[in-house]
Amino acid sequence: MPVLDYALLLDPPAFPAERYAILADRLAALMGTGNDVLLMQAEAVLALEAAATSLARPGLRALNIVTSPYGAWFGGWLARGGATVRNLTASPAKPVTLEEVERALDEGPGFDLLALVHAESASGILNPLPAIAALARQRGIVTLVDAVASIGGHAFEVDRLGIDIAVIGPQKALAGPAGVSAISVSEKAWELLSHGDAPANSMLSLLDQKKLWLDAGRGVLPGTPAPLEFYALEAALDRIEAEGLASANERHERAAAATRNGIRALGIPTWVEEAHASALVSTAILPDTVEAKAFLVAASQKQGADLSAGVGPGAERLIRLNHTGRRAHPEAVKANIAAFSSALKSLGHAADTDSALEATEKAYSDAPANGV
Amino acid sequence: MPVLDYALLLDPPAFPAERYAILADRLAALMGTGNDVLLMQAEAVLALEAAATSLARPGLRALNIVTSPYGAWFGGWLARGGATVRNLTASPAKPVTLEEVERALDEGPGFDLLALVHAESASGILNPLPAIAALARQRGIVTLVDAVASIGGHAFEVDRLGIDIAVIGPQKALAGPAGVSAISVSEKAWELLSHGDAPANSMLSLLDQKKLWLDAGRGVLPGTPAPLEFYALEAALDRIEAEGLASANERHERAAAATRNGIRALGIPTWVEEAHASALVSTAILPDTVEAKAFLVAASQKQGADLSAGVGPGAERLIRLNHTGRRAHPEAVKANIAAFSSALKSLGHAADTDSALEATEKAYSDAPANGV
Repeated sequence: MPVLDYALLLDPPAFPAERYAILADRLAALMGTGNDVLLMQAEAVLALEAAATSLARPGLRALNIVTSPYGAWFGGWLARGGATVRNLTASPAKPVTLEEVERALDEGPGFDLLALVHAESASGILNPLPAIAALARQRGIVTLVDAVASIGGHAFEVDRLGIDIAVIGPQKALAGPAGVSAISVSEKAWELLSHGDAPANSMLSLLDQKKLWLDAGRGVLPGTPAPLEFYALEAALDRIEAEGLASANERHERAAAATRNGIRALGIPTWVEEAHASALVSTAILPDTVEAKAFLVAASQKQGADLSAGVGPGAERLIRLNHTGRRAHPEAVKANIAAFSSALKSLGHAADTDSALEATEKAYSDAPANGV
Repeated sequence: MPVLDYALLLDPPAFPAERYAILADRLAALMGTGNDVLLMQAEAVLALEAAATSLARPGLRALNIVTSPYGAWFGGWLARGGATVRNLTASPAKPVTLEEVERALDEGPGFDLLALVHAESASGILNPLPAIAALARQRGIVTLVDAVASIGGHAFEVDRLGIDIAVIGPQKALAGPAGVSAISVSEKAWELLSHGDAPANSMLSLLDQKKLWLDAGRGVLPGTPAPLEFYALEAALDRIEAEGLASANERHERAAAATRNGIRALGIPTWVEEAHASALVSTAILPDTVEAKAFLVAASQKQGADLSAGVGPGAERLIRLNHTGRRAHPEAVKANIAAFSSALKSLGHAADTDSALEATEKAYSDAPANGV
């Protein structure tokens, strides 16, 4: 892989004003939506904080699904702005169930907003988004979905699912830059966002973006846009459009299946049941005899692998195998499995690397995943 | 100039964890400070909003100097968080005077915080920072200075001036990336920032940066850092250190002197008296017979020039000639003067381009500015 001369990063020309709208349209196509798409000039957590801060007001009633620390922060941002927040917290490091959501909606109070994360990188879980979104839609509740990790790795179609606010970032499954993100906003969501307590003159204001960019004809963005991020986003979209979003999703599903085949061939249980496992990251449960920290140190010495500890309550004893973005390829998947096996062995646990790699291969030689 | 293949912007390796602290130390050296330096992961306006939001609490009394829309926003962010804000607004598009500041401080109430912008790109003015900072220091008031535009263009030494919070960005006089910025924080400022109403789990929280980065040993930054911005910041620091900060300041002063020579040779008055003129941008007052919009259209057709309208109250009838960063070079200065002259002529106003360019040249052949 050629190494970039970083001095080349100096003095890029300003990103052409007329191409911001084109970027937003390309992102809208990727998200499958006719809704407005805003470009946010920072990593996606700013977009999430901006959405929560812009929605929050006294009197807003929100059902906030918590399946990782991100969900907890989201509820905190809503509450900070005076909203009444019911946090529906799933079992540690597990997805929420449709039944839990239904029960919470039945109990009320009548909610204005339902927020959840699609796929969690922290634990490798996939929440049952289509069913939850359908439920919220039936009941006329505005939905907000954090699809930062899932876009490009899982089917995520905003209009088909009827999602009012969707937050995405290019830096995960799309393998793009980390310093820019995007939010789609439906008409119904704009109504909820247009209230007297909404922030203005703020990096956290969606109404600022509406007034200063959307309503002003979608020219140059307000503030000082970072050209590197926008050129990189453009290049990332070129690449993902050339591959096709369905192929990218399939590539992730295949990498996930291969990873889990390999893990199980090592006699190691995976954490999440198949129907609720994310295609981005797989999680494995270490044997009791193996200490997690020592395991990660041993694994980190293996070239090309990307293994890490889980994040948040319930995830501490899990090992995450990352197969997101550029890592959703056979060589990265196999490097992960080989490192996992080798680290187990170095800590005195029996492991057969060859069989594990064969099991991994099998997912690639089997019939195409999902009939693609 | 070679054109960057933007596909090269894809897939940079993660910025090495151990180099964030080195970057902060290099920025501290550039700012002339032994204070803590935080790296903020967005354009500098986020750093400013974060500082204001982190300081703001009911009971905080702030004297906020307003010499452009940025200052007005800053006061608004403080007030949003419950602070008692006295805005000291200078005459339109003019610097504040030391006397005005002294009077405001005398009138009280006893202020906890004094905030101002060093040099204003919006109008080309330079506030009398050293004298104001000395005054605040005498009275034990915490100072916050927006030096986003001035760092690299004007002498700006945090510890020598005794500035408690300084906000800088690399994208102006340092000619670096726009998607990252920095804040220096003194011990006294940390005391003021450590209060019960401070935001947490927020992109706007300085205490988060303290807890999650400074106190944690300055490894990888919290969140998802954008590698392109940090590699570009490193390259920008390489370049500015190779030139030397004093030379960069001198380059800006020379460009400013040359620009104003050229403008005056055209018979056009400059807006700001010399002692209070920024070295970043010069402002000229159009003759009454020349319509500003038509002038800017005519000027924009000239290659290599960067002329624009002033920003904010009082600045509408001003034309800004930008000589910041890479534009602080003779060829860019001359392109500005030539475009100014040519636009005047095309609108029926007499102008002698050759004499103006000669006057511009003269600033470069004269004895070195500032005895450098």
